[in-house]
Amino acid sequence: MTSIWKIALGTASAMALASSASASELRDYALEMFAALPSTIPALKDNPVTPQKIDLGKALFFDPRMSASGVFSCNSCHNLATGGDDNMPTSIGHGWQKGPRNSPTVLNAVFNEAQFWDGRAADLAEQAKGPVQAGVEMANTPANVVATLNSMPQYQEWFKASFPGEDDPVTFDNFAKAIEAYEATLITPAPFDAFLNGDDNALTDEQKEGLALFMDTGCASCHNGVNIGGTGYFPFGLIEKPGADVLPPDDRGRFAVTETADDSYVFRAAPLRNIDQTAPYFHSGKVWDLKVAVAIMGTSQLGTELNDDEVDKIVAFLGSLTGEMPQVTYPVLPTETLDTPRPTGEVVPN
Amino acid sequence: MTSIWKIALGTASAMALASSASASELRDYALEMFAALPSTIPALKDNPVTPQKIDLGKALFFDPRMSASGVFSCNSCHNLATGGDDNMPTSIGHGWQKGPRNSPTVLNAVFNEAQFWDGRAADLAEQAKGPVQAGVEMANTPANVVATLNSMPQYQEWFKASFPGEDDPVTFDNFAKAIEAYEATLITPAPFDAFLNGDDNALTDEQKEGLALFMDTGCASCHNGVNIGGTGYFPFGLIEKPGADVLPPDDRGRFAVTETADDSYVFRAAPLRNIDQTAPYFHSGKVWDLKVAVAIMGTSQLGTELNDDEVDKIVAFLGSLTGEMPQVTYPVLPTETLDTPRPTGEVVPN
Repeated sequence: MTSIWKIALGTASAMALASSASASELRDYALEMFAALPSTIPALKDNPVTPQKIDLGKALFFDPRMSASGVFSCNSCHNLATGGDDNMPTSIGHGWQKGPRNSPTVLNAVFNEAQFWDGRAADLAEQAKGPVQAGVEMANTPANVVATLNSMPQYQEWFKASFPGEDDPVTFDNFAKAIEAYEATLITPAPFDAFLNGDDNALTDEQKEGLALFMDTGCASCHNGVNIGGTGYFPFGLIEKPGADVLPPDDRGRFAVTETADDSYVFRAAPLRNIDQTAPYFHSGKVWDLKVAVAIMGTSQLGTELNDDEVDKIVAFLGSLTGEMPQVTYPVLPTETLDTPRPTGEVVPN
Repeated sequence: MTSIWKIALGTASAMALASSASASELRDYALEMFAALPSTIPALKDNPVTPQKIDLGKALFFDPRMSASGVFSCNSCHNLATGGDDNMPTSIGHGWQKGPRNSPTVLNAVFNEAQFWDGRAADLAEQAKGPVQAGVEMANTPANVVATLNSMPQYQEWFKASFPGEDDPVTFDNFAKAIEAYEATLITPAPFDAFLNGDDNALTDEQKEGLALFMDTGCASCHNGVNIGGTGYFPFGLIEKPGADVLPPDDRGRFAVTETADDSYVFRAAPLRNIDQTAPYFHSGKVWDLKVAVAIMGTSQLGTELNDDEVDKIVAFLGSLTGEMPQVTYPVLPTETLDTPRPTGEVVPN
């Protein structure tokens, strides 16, 4: 497979540039495929971001009372202490049920083209409504979320301040919008951004060689843009299907969204920022070693057997995508009242 | 029942003082029974508190990888966002099992004479070892905790810095000591402290009357000291046993610790700081309304039918025990390695 990058650059080899330590030429090539994180919070569609809304969204993100049981918050599976995910193959949710796919990181997710592994949610607001209602995750209902929020005067005030001019601001839509606004702040500038922004020394020589390999071998054909992935949909196993342990046959990916045969086993290209913080890998969460994951990508997507040295360098480059977490002050949440719906761990069959 | 306070003060009535708004005399009486929170972190037995140890303890407190499943951290059931507890009758733990007793708040717990409802742990370090190993809570083992910690170089460094001079600082004992050091910082100065410290206006008139009632009716006989409870052991149902819903017959409290008949249904007097943030109430967690809880205490412990006005005033006073949370920066935790034991949600029968 010829990479987009090779098409763009003709016969030039980034690897040669990396070896000759011409950082600025390597950067120029890289800037054809990638973009540094913006220095400000991105604008959201139909959702103006305000400090009040960010604070409200943070409270909601950390509030376990948004789940039926009172056990799980957004942060349970997208834990800001551990790379924005939960370090499990698939999450454990309501009634100790297992989720179907690996929990993706919330960090920088605002820059993904769409949300979930299959891209079934257009944005983070739509995404936020999913796990809250999923029977195997938070097992709640929009009506119960709104009743919970309305039972606490402090939440009522915060919604009012976050959605000024609305007669009835405490809604499930606004709940999701506030979470989206908060999540848009979860941006982690990394050494790779510093490199793209002009700092030659932000990457080690090994990381530069890894970057060059990442472009030369074609990884960047799918994993590109500001999130080094998160845009575009591609079949997992484009060249060669990985084993059923890594690609379970009963999860056909985006096929469930589009019901188009071409979308069988198609997934959104995984965004790779902070990837070395978010093992295990793939939608199945079956691969714990990033080196193994890179090698599988080589054979399954590129038809290339990467040797150990190449894998090491690419993994070194991926390490340069691990960024600095924004400092998060843990919220103090509103107090329940006697009107607050009681938590229930009961598992209701579908 | 004659309260300790009445014995100390003879025939004087705090209620009369509250009514006459003699705040300083009311304070003098109150200072016979209560103490304001200290302004500094208390010293811990055999556990010098250092900034390094506090930071390590905070990381451990928030780290879900300390549980076998990777789902639960200390903060899951002692959530600093919601009054230091989890707002459930009893906690949900490993395998969706229910814990036997209501999760008590971690806030100011360092000032309790002993830990757990039955006082079976002498201090917070001993306490911290309990839930981690309890099959219905975090279901982990000391060996697995130590293996998990040792698998992450950042934790190794933090333990070294926290326990200088120790050859092998990553131990289960030191894990518990670091958590104890962090928990000792979780102190919440409240309006009642300001009142004890000389601010006449820190309590409303209703709260002052409630304070007077709290002393006059005898509540303060058991709920006294710096934590307004948390010291001393008393039978639940001293005068009249509450119903089996509130006092389940199969939980005999401190009897399980001492195996002494006198300790049947005996519990440590509940510490009352932040009590209006920590519903539901009692070791059984069966009472959601603080007013109902106060009324039950009146009949069961004091043989007094408190009227609605008295209950309201006492609850108003209890509200003055709700303090300001220390600002908590959410930690960024060490990253797992390939040596980190994998999380398992498997439920192993005893």
